[in-house]
Amino acid sequence: MLPMEKVLRDPIHDYIYIQHQVILDLINTREFQRLRRIRQLGTTSFTFHGAEHSRFTHSVGVYEITRRICDLFLRNYPTKNEHDGLWNDDERIVALCAALLHDIGHGAYSHTFEHIFHTNHEKMTVDIITSPQTEVNAVLRTVSEDFPEKVASVITKKYPNKQVVQMISSQIDADRMDYLLRDSYYTGASYGSFDLTRILRVMRPYNDGIIFDISGMHAVEDYIVSRFQMYQQVYFHPVSRSMEVTLDHLLHRAKTLSKTETLKNTFSISFLAPFFTKTATLNDYLHLDDGVLNTCFELWRSSDDRILRDLASRFLDRKPFKSVRITDDTKKLIPHLNELVEQAGYNPDYYTAINDSFDLPYDSYSSSINHSSQIKLIRKDGSIVELSAISELVKAITGKFLGDERFFFPKEMLRNSSQIDFLVSPQFSAHIKNDYLV
Amino acid sequence: MLPMEKVLRDPIHDYIYIQHQVILDLINTREFQRLRRIRQLGTTSFTFHGAEHSRFTHSVGVYEITRRICDLFLRNYPTKNEHDGLWNDDERIVALCAALLHDIGHGAYSHTFEHIFHTNHEKMTVDIITSPQTEVNAVLRTVSEDFPEKVASVITKKYPNKQVVQMISSQIDADRMDYLLRDSYYTGASYGSFDLTRILRVMRPYNDGIIFDISGMHAVEDYIVSRFQMYQQVYFHPVSRSMEVTLDHLLHRAKTLSKTETLKNTFSISFLAPFFTKTATLNDYLHLDDGVLNTCFELWRSSDDRILRDLASRFLDRKPFKSVRITDDTKKLIPHLNELVEQAGYNPDYYTAINDSFDLPYDSYSSSINHSSQIKLIRKDGSIVELSAISELVKAITGKFLGDERFFFPKEMLRNSSQIDFLVSPQFSAHIKNDYLV
Amino acid sequence: MLPMEKVLRDPIHDYIYIQHQVILDLINTREFQRLRRIRQLGTTSFTFHGAEHSRFTHSVGVYEITRRICDLFLRNYPTKNEHDGLWNDDERIVALCAALLHDIGHGAYSHTFEHIFHTNHEKMTVDIITSPQTEVNAVLRTVSEDFPEKVASVITKKYPNKQVVQMISSQIDADRMDYLLRDSYYTGASYGSFDLTRILRVMRPYNDGIIFDISGMHAVEDYIVSRFQMYQQVYFHPVSRSMEVTLDHLLHRAKTLSKTETLKNTFSISFLAPFFTKTATLNDYLHLDDGVLNTCFELWRSSDDRILRDLASRFLDRKPFKSVRITDDTKKLIPHLNELVEQAGYNPDYYTAINDSFDLPYDSYSSSINHSSQIKLIRKDGSIVELSAISELVKAITGKFLGDERFFFPKEMLRNSSQIDFLVSPQFSAHIKNDYLV
Amino acid sequence: MLPMEKVLRDPIHDYIYIQHQVILDLINTREFQRLRRIRQLGTTSFTFHGAEHSRFTHSVGVYEITRRICDLFLRNYPTKNEHDGLWNDDERIVALCAALLHDIGHGAYSHTFEHIFHTNHEKMTVDIITSPQTEVNAVLRTVSEDFPEKVASVITKKYPNKQVVQMISSQIDADRMDYLLRDSYYTGASYGSFDLTRILRVMRPYNDGIIFDISGMHAVEDYIVSRFQMYQQVYFHPVSRSMEVTLDHLLHRAKTLSKTETLKNTFSISFLAPFFTKTATLNDYLHLDDGVLNTCFELWRSSDDRILRDLASRFLDRKPFKSVRITDDTKKLIPHLNELVEQAGYNPDYYTAINDSFDLPYDSYSSSINHSSQIKLIRKDGSIVELSAISELVKAITGKFLGDERFFFPKEMLRNSSQIDFLVSPQFSAHIKNDYLV
Repeated sequence: MLPMEKVLRDPIHDYIYIQHQVILDLINTREFQRLRRIRQLGTTSFTFHGAEHSRFTHSVGVYEITRRICDLFLRNYPTKNEHDGLWNDDERIVALCAALLHDIGHGAYSHTFEHIFHTNHEKMTVDIITSPQTEVNAVLRTVSEDFPEKVASVITKKYPNKQVVQMISSQIDADRMDYLLRDSYYTGASYGSFDLTRILRVMRPYNDGIIFDISGMHAVEDYIVSRFQMYQQVYFHPVSRSMEVTLDHLLHRAKTLSKTETLKNTFSISFLAPFFTKTATLNDYLHLDDGVLNTCFELWRSSDDRILRDLASRFLDRKPFKSVRITDDTKKLIPHLNELVEQAGYNPDYYTAINDSFDLPYDSYSSSINHSSQIKLIRKDGSIVELSAISELVKAITGKFLGDERFFFPKEMLRNSSQIDFLVSPQFSAHIKNDYLV
Repeated sequence: MLPMEKVLRDPIHDYIYIQHQVILDLINTREFQRLRRIRQLGTTSFTFHGAEHSRFTHSVGVYEITRRICDLFLRNYPTKNEHDGLWNDDERIVALCAALLHDIGHGAYSHTFEHIFHTNHEKMTVDIITSPQTEVNAVLRTVSEDFPEKVASVITKKYPNKQVVQMISSQIDADRMDYLLRDSYYTGASYGSFDLTRILRVMRPYNDGIIFDISGMHAVEDYIVSRFQMYQQVYFHPVSRSMEVTLDHLLHRAKTLSKTETLKNTFSISFLAPFFTKTATLNDYLHLDDGVLNTCFELWRSSDDRILRDLASRFLDRKPFKSVRITDDTKKLIPHLNELVEQAGYNPDYYTAINDSFDLPYDSYSSSINHSSQIKLIRKDGSIVELSAISELVKAITGKFLGDERFFFPKEMLRNSSQIDFLVSPQFSAHIKNDYLV
Repeated sequence: MLPMEKVLRDPIHDYIYIQHQVILDLINTREFQRLRRIRQLGTTSFTFHGAEHSRFTHSVGVYEITRRICDLFLRNYPTKNEHDGLWNDDERIVALCAALLHDIGHGAYSHTFEHIFHTNHEKMTVDIITSPQTEVNAVLRTVSEDFPEKVASVITKKYPNKQVVQMISSQIDADRMDYLLRDSYYTGASYGSFDLTRILRVMRPYNDGIIFDISGMHAVEDYIVSRFQMYQQVYFHPVSRSMEVTLDHLLHRAKTLSKTETLKNTFSISFLAPFFTKTATLNDYLHLDDGVLNTCFELWRSSDDRILRDLASRFLDRKPFKSVRITDDTKKLIPHLNELVEQAGYNPDYYTAINDSFDLPYDSYSSSINHSSQIKLIRKDGSIVELSAISELVKAITGKFLGDERFFFPKEMLRNSSQIDFLVSPQFSAHIKNDYLV
Repeated sequence: MLPMEKVLRDPIHDYIYIQHQVILDLINTREFQRLRRIRQLGTTSFTFHGAEHSRFTHSVGVYEITRRICDLFLRNYPTKNEHDGLWNDDERIVALCAALLHDIGHGAYSHTFEHIFHTNHEKMTVDIITSPQTEVNAVLRTVSEDFPEKVASVITKKYPNKQVVQMISSQIDADRMDYLLRDSYYTGASYGSFDLTRILRVMRPYNDGIIFDISGMHAVEDYIVSRFQMYQQVYFHPVSRSMEVTLDHLLHRAKTLSKTETLKNTFSISFLAPFFTKTATLNDYLHLDDGVLNTCFELWRSSDDRILRDLASRFLDRKPFKSVRITDDTKKLIPHLNELVEQAGYNPDYYTAINDSFDLPYDSYSSSINHSSQIKLIRKDGSIVELSAISELVKAITGKFLGDERFFFPKEMLRNSSQIDFLVSPQFSAHIKNDYLV
C-alpha cells in the first residue's frame, strides 16, 4: 500500500484512485506509457472527431472500475470460510493488475495490423507480462516470482478464481463497462450511457463467478441495450470501416512491395522492416505506435509506387471509400462492379473490399464452454434466472449476430469526371439504391 | 451553400453544422486533416490523461461558435445602412473561414518547437492560407482571387471590419470560448465551464467591435474567472511544464548534435533535417506532426549519445523533472543547486531549467493599441461601461500577471541512491520547503 | 411578435424562448400559473424524491420543443404550394398555443381524482380554452374570435392540419419528448435520456403528418426504448402506485362520509364540497391544486372517523402499503387474503387493492383510427417503412402491453405485532415469495 | 446498523446511502415528511421555474455529504488517542442526525412568515428535536435519553466536538455545499457548481475543527466564488424578492384585518388563527406548509377586502412588483414616489417596499466569536494559512457585504392606463434610469 493514495483526474470516473505501489509502478513502465500513443478506437475518430482518446485512458478506467468492485465485494460480501463462494480480498491485487494490463499488448491500429502481419494482441499481452525483458514484468515480480504468470492467467481466463476472471472478461465486465461509458463520452454519442453505480451495487460474488441481484435487472438490461446501440451506431459506422479498409489495403500494398527489389528504398524507417520479413521480436513490436505508422505513411506519400502513394494520402487526408450494404443475393454482382472499377482505372485488389461487422449483443447459450458467460440474476429466495428469460428487450437481440456486410469502392465511381470513362459511372451508380446494392 | 447542411457530432457543441461548400472543402484539405495528428494541449495530457484531443476538434469548435454568433447577429442586429454599426451578413463567410483556419499553422508541440527552431505558428497560418501551393489556398480561391488575403488579414487583425476580427481574437472570442469548454470537458477539470448560451445571447455588434449587454455581466464575469482558474489549475500545471522542459532540452540536444559529424547517423528520418539546417520550407513544416516527432524520439532512444538517449526516454516514458517555486530572492541559489546537480552526474544545461508561466487574466488598459481588447458592456440607455469597473472579481485579477516561476531538476536529486554521492541529495533537499526554494 | 424575445431559464432546454405576445400573456394567466401548484408526477415523488417539478415546467418545455420543430420545418421544409405536404408557417401560432396549453386542464392528483369524482382533464382542457370565463380564453381571442376553438381542436385531434396535431400528440411528440427528458432529469434516473437534437433534425413534415428520415432510425429506436424503460422503472414503481392506492381509498372514504350527516363537520374547507355533491363548475375545478387537497387531508387527520384519519396520515406521512405481483392464477387467492386482512382489523375496502399498470410501448397497428400514430421513416428514394419493421428492439415491445398487476395491503400484515392476532401474519406471509403471490 | 443498506435515488449525489435504523426512522417521521411540502427556495421558483424542490431533498443531501465526510475521515484520519485531534467515529451518528435534521424547523415561506409572525425556524428546529411530543424526539431517544439534547447542541453550535459542528455549519459545510449544487441543478443556472469530490478529499479533522489541505486551495476558492455568484444571480434576483415583498404585504394585511370584527369570516381555515392571536403551539406550527398557506390565499381571493383580495391574486398568479436599485442618496426620493403611488390609487403601505439583499461572501475576521469560521489551509510542513491570504479572488470579496437595495412598486406605475391619472405615470417613470433611481 502507498503511504498516501494518489489520484488521477478522469472525465469518466472523476478520479482514479491508486493505492498500491505496484499499480503506480506499472503505470510508470515504458510499456504502459506507450499506450498513450495508441488511440482506443483506431479509425473511429475519422467519423466521430472527438474520440481521440488513447488505450491509456481506457486501461486506467478498467482498473478503477475493478477497484470499486473489489471495495464493494469486501464491504458487502467478504468470505468467511473457503467454500462460501464470497469474496476473498487477497485476490484484489491480481485483479487490479490484470485489469490495468488487459490491453497492454495492443498495437497501432491493432485490428488491421494483425490482419496483415499475423500478430495477436492477446498473445502480446501475455508476452509483455511474462517476458523477463519488460519493465512490466520486473514490476510484477516485486510481488512474487510467480505473480506475472498469475496475472497472465487471468487474461487467458485460466486463473482458478472465476470471480476475478469475470470481473475482467465476461459479458458485463469492467472492460466493457469502461469502454462504453468512455467511448460514449468522447464521441459525444448519447447511446452508450448506463447506470454504472447501480450495476456495481447489484453485482455479487457467487461461487464460481459473478451474479446480479434481481433488483438490478433493468440496469443490466439497459447496459446490454446501450452496448448494442453503440455497436450499431458508433463501432460499425461505415465511414470508420471505410478508413479501416483503406488502411488494410495500404499495409497490404506495402507488404507486397517490400518483396520487390526496386521499391525497398521507399521504406526509410527501420521499425516496420522486421514485420515485413516476419522476424519481429517483442521489442520490435513495442517500438510501434500510431505515430510511427503514420510517419511511415507520410513517407509513402512520396513513394514511386502510384498505389502506395495514393492510398497513403487517402488515409492521412481522410478520403474514405464509399460503400453500400450487400446481401447474399446481391453479392454476386460484385465481380461485375469490380470490372467497372477496373475500367475506371482502379485496381480492385486495392480499391474495393467486402467488409462485414457483426456483433453478438448477448449470448445466452449454455454450452460447456461459455456457460459462465451468461448473465445470471439471483432472486430473493436464492433461485437464479438467466437475463434473456426475463427481459423482452434482451431476448430480442440474444443470440443474433446483428450488423451488416458492405461493399467498399472509390467515391470517384459515383461522379462523372473527365478521368473516368463517361459510361462507367452511370452504370455503376445504377446498382445503388437506398444504401443497398441492387 | 450546400444543398443540404451536413453535421459533425461534437461532444461540446452537440453538433457542428456545415452549410457552405467552401467550409466542407477546407475541412477536407490535407493541411486541415493534419490537425488531427497534433494534440491541442501538447504535454498537458501527461498530467490530465483525458486531454488527448487534437487541434482539429478545437478548430471545428471555433468555427461552430462563430457560426452561431453570425446567426444571432443576423437575427437580432442586421445592418440597415452602411454606418449603423450593425451586422452585415456578407461578412459571414470570411468570418467562418478565419475561425476554422485560425490555428492551421500550428505544428507539433508548437511552443517548444518554435523556441528551438525559431518557427512561428502565426506566420505559418498566414503562409498556409496565402501560399498558392496549398490545398487550403486553392479552396479559398474558389470564393475569389483576393479571398485568401482577406482571411489572412482577419488573423493578423488588419481586416477592416473589427466585428469579424473580435469574433476570432479578443479577450472573449470564439477561440477562447471553445478551448475553455473543450479543455475542461476533456481534462475532466470542473473549472473551465461557463454559460456559453447566455454569453452569445448578450453579444452585440457595435460600431467597430463587439459589445455585451449589461444583463449578461455575471456570465461574462464567470467566463473571465473560469479562464483564470483553468490557467492556474490546468495550463500552468508544474508536471506538464516539466515535460515541456524535458522536450525543450531534448530538441536542444538534438540540434547541438546535428552539427557534429559523428552523430549524424542518429537521425534516420529525413523530416527534421531541414530544420536543423535552417532550410525548411512550408512543405517541410507540413510533414511534421506529433507522431513524426515522437518517432524521432523513439529512434533517439538508441542513440550513441547518452544525454539524447536519456532525455528521449524520459519524454516518451513520462519521467518528469521535479520542480519548486522560486522568487527573485531565492533565484540566486540556483547556481549552487546547479553545482549539486552536476556533482550528481547530470549536465545542468540539459537537466535543470527555470520556467515561468504567467497569464494576464484580463486587461482593462486603454492604450491606443489594445483599446479594442477591453470588454465593454452597454446599459439600457446606451451608455457603456468597462467590465472591471463593475465586477469586484474581475477587478481583483485585472492587469496582474498571475502565475509562478519554477526551478526544474531531476527527481533523482531527492532520493538517496547508490548512483549519487550520498551527501549531495540531503544538501539539495534541504533547500526545498512547502514547494518553495529556501 | 414581441419587440425583443424573452427567455426563461430551464434545466432541460437551457432556455425557453418566448417570441410572441400571446404566449407571454397565456403564461401570465391565472389558469396557467395554477399549474405551478400541481406536481407533474403526482405520487412519484414519494419514491423519487427529486421529482417534485410541476406541470408548469413541463408545459413550457413542450412549448419550447414545438417552437424548435417549427423553426426547423420553416428552415428546411417550407411549403411552396398548397398541396406539397410541406410546412406552412402560418400554423406556428396555433401549434405553439396548443403545445403550451395541452395540459392546462390537469388538476391535483389527476388520475386518482378523476377516478373518484368522474372529472376528465382533457375535457377540462377544452373547457378552459373555450369558456369565455377564463383568462386563457380572453388571451386567445386577441388572435381571432375562432382561435380558441382552433387551439382546442388541435388537442382533440380534429384540427385539419395533421402535422400540427402530431407535433403535440402522437407516439413521438413534443409532449412525450419533454416529459421523458424532464422526468429523467428530476428523478435522477438514467433511463429517460435520448438524443433530442438528432430526432428534431430528422423530423419532417409529410403530407398529412410527420415522418422521420431513415438516417435517424437509431435515435427514434432509442427514444422508444427509453420511454419503455421509464415506464418500467419510474412510472410503474410499486411504491408510487401504493401511495396512489392510499389516496384513492382516502378520497373514496371522504366521499362516502360526505353523504352521512354526522361527519359533515369534518370538512372545513369549502373547495371540495361541490365535487361531493356533483355540482362542481369549471371555476370550482380551478380552485383545486395539490396544496388545497393536502390541506383537506391535514384537516382530516383529526377527523372523528378512524379510517379517514388513518388514511390521511398514511398519505401525508408516506406510509405506503406493501404489494406483491399477482397473475390470473393467483388472483383467486385474494378473497382469502382479504379475510386475513379483515381478521387483523383492517377493512379490506379501504386497506387492500388490486392495481395494474400497463403501457403499450409502441403500437404499429394500422387501423383506420390510429393509422397515423405509427412511426414512419422515409428512405432516400422516398419509400416509407414503419419503425418496428426495421428495429429488432422496437419489434420486441411492439403491440405488447407490458407492466404488472399487484395486490396492495397494509405492511402491518407482514410483522408480528401485539395488535394483530399472532397467527394471522405468518399465514399471510406464507403466500408471498419472490415478490409474487403463491 | 441496518442489516442491508438502503438507497434513495438522488439527482445530485446519485444515491443517498442509509445505513442506520435511526436515520431511516427519522426520515419516516411525520415532521420530516412534512418537509416534502415546503419548497427549498420559497419564491425563487417564480423566477427560475425549475427550482421547485423541497426542503426534504436538501435535507437528505446534507445528510449524504456528512456521511461521506465521516467515511473519508474514518479511512484517512482515525483517532488513535484522545488528544490527537483526529476523527473519532463514535461521533458519526450525532453528526448524521444533526445533518439530517438541521432544517426540520423550517416552515412555509420561512423568511417572510417569521418577519410577520415572529417565529424562528432555528428555535423550532431545537423544539422539534427536544420536545417529547414529536416523532423525531421519540426516534432520537431510541439511541439514548440525552441524545436529542446532543443533536440539538450541534445545531446551536454548543456541542463540544467542533469537528461535528463545522461539518454542519461553517463557511464551507455540508449544508452550503448541498444547497449550492442542488439549487444550481434545479434552477439550471450554471454558476453554483464546484468540485465536491475534490473538496471532500482535501478536508481534514484538525484539533478543534476542520481544515483543508493546501493542494485543494483552488477547489475551495472556486466554491467561494460559486457561492458568491449564486447569491448575485439567483438568490438575490429582483423578481423573486418582489414576490417576497408581495407575500409580506399580503400576510401583513391579513394580520391587520384579523383584529377587525367585520373581516373575521374571511378566514375559513383554522390553521392560521393561532398565529394571528399569538397563541400558536409547536403543533400548530407543524400543521403549516406551502399548500396550507396557498390555500388560505386562494380563499382570500374572494375576500371583501380589496387589498387582501388583490395581493392574494398577485401572489398566486405571479404578478410581481417592479423595482429599481436605490442608493443612500436616492433614498430620499421615496416619499415623493410613494405619494405618486398613492395618487395612482395604491396604498403605499401595501404596494411599495424597500428591500435589501446583502451577503457576506466570505469572512476572514478573527474575532474570538467566529475565529473558527475562517477557512484555513494546511501546508506540507504543518503550517497554516487563511484562505483570503493566498487567493486574489477570495480576497476581492472578503468582508464585503455585496448585494443591493431596491425600491418595489406596482408595475402599473410605468404604464399609461385609463385607471391612473395620465400625469402620474410619466412623472414616476422619469425617476428611473438604467435600473437605478435618479
